[in-house]
Amino acid sequence: MKFNIALLAGDGIGPEVINEAVKVSDAIAKKFNHEITWTPALTGACAIDAVGVPYPDETHEICMAADAVLFGAIGHPKYDNDPKATVRPEQGLLLMRKKLGLFANVRPTFTFPSLIDNSPLKRERIEGTDLIFLRELTGGIYFGEKGRKDDGETAYDTCTYTRSEVKRLAKKGFELAMTRSKKLCCVDKANVLETSRLWRETVQEMEKEYPEVTVSYEFVDAVAMRLVQWPNSYDVLITENLFGDILTDEASVISGSMGLMPSASVGEHTSLYEPIHGSYPQATGLDIANPLATVLSAAMMFEDAFGLKEEAEAIRTVVNKSLEQGIVTEDLASKDSKAYKTSEVGDWLVANL
Amino acid sequence: MKFNIALLAGDGIGPEVINEAVKVSDAIAKKFNHEITWTPALTGACAIDAVGVPYPDETHEICMAADAVLFGAIGHPKYDNDPKATVRPEQGLLLMRKKLGLFANVRPTFTFPSLIDNSPLKRERIEGTDLIFLRELTGGIYFGEKGRKDDGETAYDTCTYTRSEVKRLAKKGFELAMTRSKKLCCVDKANVLETSRLWRETVQEMEKEYPEVTVSYEFVDAVAMRLVQWPNSYDVLITENLFGDILTDEASVISGSMGLMPSASVGEHTSLYEPIHGSYPQATGLDIANPLATVLSAAMMFEDAFGLKEEAEAIRTVVNKSLEQGIVTEDLASKDSKAYKTSEVGDWLVANL
Ligand SMILES: CC(C)[C@H](C(=O)O)[C@@H](O)C(=O)O
Ligand SMILES: CC(C)[C@H](C(=O)O)[C@@H](O)C(=O)O
Repeated sequence: MKFNIALLAGDGIGPEVINEAVKVSDAIAKKFNHEITWTPALTGACAIDAVGVPYPDETHEICMAADAVLFGAIGHPKYDNDPKATVRPEQGLLLMRKKLGLFANVRPTFTFPSLIDNSPLKRERIEGTDLIFLRELTGGIYFGEKGRKDDGETAYDTCTYTRSEVKRLAKKGFELAMTRSKKLCCVDKANVLETSRLWRETVQEMEKEYPEVTVSYEFVDAVAMRLVQWPNSYDVLITENLFGDILTDEASVISGSMGLMPSASVGEHTSLYEPIHGSYPQATGLDIANPLATVLSAAMMFEDAFGLKEEAEAIRTVVNKSLEQGIVTEDLASKDSKAYKTSEVGDWLVANL
Repeated sequence: MKFNIALLAGDGIGPEVINEAVKVSDAIAKKFNHEITWTPALTGACAIDAVGVPYPDETHEICMAADAVLFGAIGHPKYDNDPKATVRPEQGLLLMRKKLGLFANVRPTFTFPSLIDNSPLKRERIEGTDLIFLRELTGGIYFGEKGRKDDGETAYDTCTYTRSEVKRLAKKGFELAMTRSKKLCCVDKANVLETSRLWRETVQEMEKEYPEVTVSYEFVDAVAMRLVQWPNSYDVLITENLFGDILTDEASVISGSMGLMPSASVGEHTSLYEPIHGSYPQATGLDIANPLATVLSAAMMFEDAFGLKEEAEAIRTVVNKSLEQGIVTEDLASKDSKAYKTSEVGDWLVANL
C-alpha cells in the first residue's frame, strides 16, 4: 500500500522524537512492502517565527490531502506567561483541531509491566490499569464566545454544546466500549452545568441503542478522585473538552509511563497521531527526549488509519522489547544503568524490528 | 466567651458526624469556660422534603445571625441521575454560598504520620505534603448565565469573572502565603480562556504589593498531573471555582485521609466550616461514618472564626491521639483491629480531651 503522511514536527523536542518515529515507520513499511511519502509542514512557534501564524493555510492543505498526520509537540517559553500575547502556538493547535474537524481525542492510559514501579501510585493500585478517554475536542468552552466587558474589568468565556456534537462523540464511545469490556463512563458536572445536563440526557437516550453497554454517570470531581484511587476500575470514559483536558493529563501520570502514552485525534477529515507529552523546551537539541510515545503513536496510525494491525503489533512488540532490555532514554533509565540517546533508541528499534 | 453557632447537619451521615463535633465542641467549651448556643436549621434534601426548598429563608437568617456555621453534608440519591429534576439539594449549597457571600473555600490537604500508608501514593511521594487550596466559590461558570437554545438542542453555560472578584480571592492567597512558606501558585488555563487571562493579569499586578511572595503560574492540566507526582512541591494554591472543585477533590484523596480533611468557606458574612466528604447515603444511620473531618472542621472554627488557638490545638491533639491509638471507624481500622462506631469515637475524644 501507498501512504502520504503529513509530518508536523512542531517545536522543542518535536523534531527529534518525530525523527525516530519516521525511522521506525520507514523500516516497518520496508518490511511489509508499503511505500510512505512524508510531507513536512510547519506548525506551532516555529510556524509563527517563519510565517507569522501557528497553523498556516499551506499546512492545513497538506494535512487535508494526507492519509494521516503525524504530530510532534508545540509550544515555546517565549510565548508563555504573557497574558497579552496576541499570537500563541496553542492557537495553531486549536485552529488545526477545528479545521480538520478532529472532534474526538482518543487517549489511552495503560501500564507496562516493566515500568510499573515508576508510577507514583502503589503497585496494587495501578496494576492492570487499561483505560481510554474519549475527549471531545472541537467544542465547549475552548471554542465558545469569549471576551471582555466593562473596560476590560470583566472577562467571560462561553461553554456551548449541541446535541449532535455530544452524539457523535458518545457514538464513538459506545462503539469503543463494544470492542472492549462494554463499560462506559460519562463524566460530567450535571449537578451544576446545563451543558452537562445535555450530555447526560443525550447519552441516556443513546443507551437504548447499545443495550449491552453498561453506562455509569459520574461527576468530574468524583472521577478526579477515583482516577487516583482505583484507576483500574475504569474502562472507556467520555467527556467534554475542558474536563478531558484535565482528566487525561491526570490519568497520564498515574501509569508512570507518561513518556510512552500515544494519542489519536479523529473526526471528519484526516486523523492525527501524537504523543501526549509536551514540547519539553529545556531538552531541545540534546538528543535525550524519549521517542517512544511518538513511535507508539505511529503504531496507532498504522492500525487505526491504515487498518494494518500486524504492522502496529510489530512496532509495539519491539517497543516492549526495548523496555525490557533497558534500551531507554534517561527518563526511564535506572540509577545504575546506561541512558540511551533519543536517536540510539530509534536505531535500536529499527535494528530489532 | 459566648458563641451562637448555626448547625446545618444536612443529609445522609451529616447528622451523625455533626453530633460528634457538637459533643467535642461542648466539651472544649466547658473546659475553657465558653458558652455555645447551637441553633439547628434545615438544608439539603431534608429541607426539600420538609419545606420544598433546599436552603430555606429561615435557615439563611439563622446563618446570618450566627457567629459561625457548622455544616455536615448534603445530597440524596433520589435527587441524583435525573437531569430534569427541578429542585436539587446542590442548589441549596450554591444559594447558601452566594447569599452568605462565601467567596473563598479554604481546603487544606495534609498527612497524618500514622495514616501515610493509607495513601494510594507511595510514601516517598506523599510524605511532607501540606498544601492549601483557596478555591473561588461564588463566581465563574457555577453562577453565570446558563440555559438552552434551538428547542433544547443547544445548551450553554457562561463563565464570568470580574477583576475585583479575582482580587479579593487572590488577596487571601497572598496573605495566607505570607504566614506560610511565601510560595503561591496561581492555577489557570490562560492559554485558552479569557477569564484565566484576567486571573493571571490581576495576580501579576498584585505581585508588587507582596514582594516577598514567589508566585508561579501553572495550567490546570499541569497541576492535575503534578498533584499526583509531587504533591509536596505545593504550598498555597489559588484558583477559580470549577478548577478548584476538581483539583481540591483530587488533592483530598492523595493524602489517604479524605475522611479527615476539614474545610472552611469564608467571605462577607458568617464563615462556614464543613468536612469535605459527602453525605455517604449508604451509611446513613449505621453509626459507622468517620466523624473526624467534622471534628477537625470545628477546630478550624475555634481557631479562625473565634480566634481560639489553644482550643483548636486541644482538639487536634486529641484527634491525633485517637489515630495513634487506633480509636477509629471502619474506614481507617486495620484488618485485625477493632472498628469503632461513630459515636464511640466521639465519646473517646470527649473523655480524652
Ligand atoms: C496547549 C493546550 C491548548 C492544549 C489543550 O488544552 O487542549 C493541551 O493542553 C492539550 O491537551 O492538547
Ligand atoms: C455538590 C456540588 C455542587 C459541589 C460543587 O461542585 O461545588 C461539591 O462538589 C463541592 O465541591 O462542594
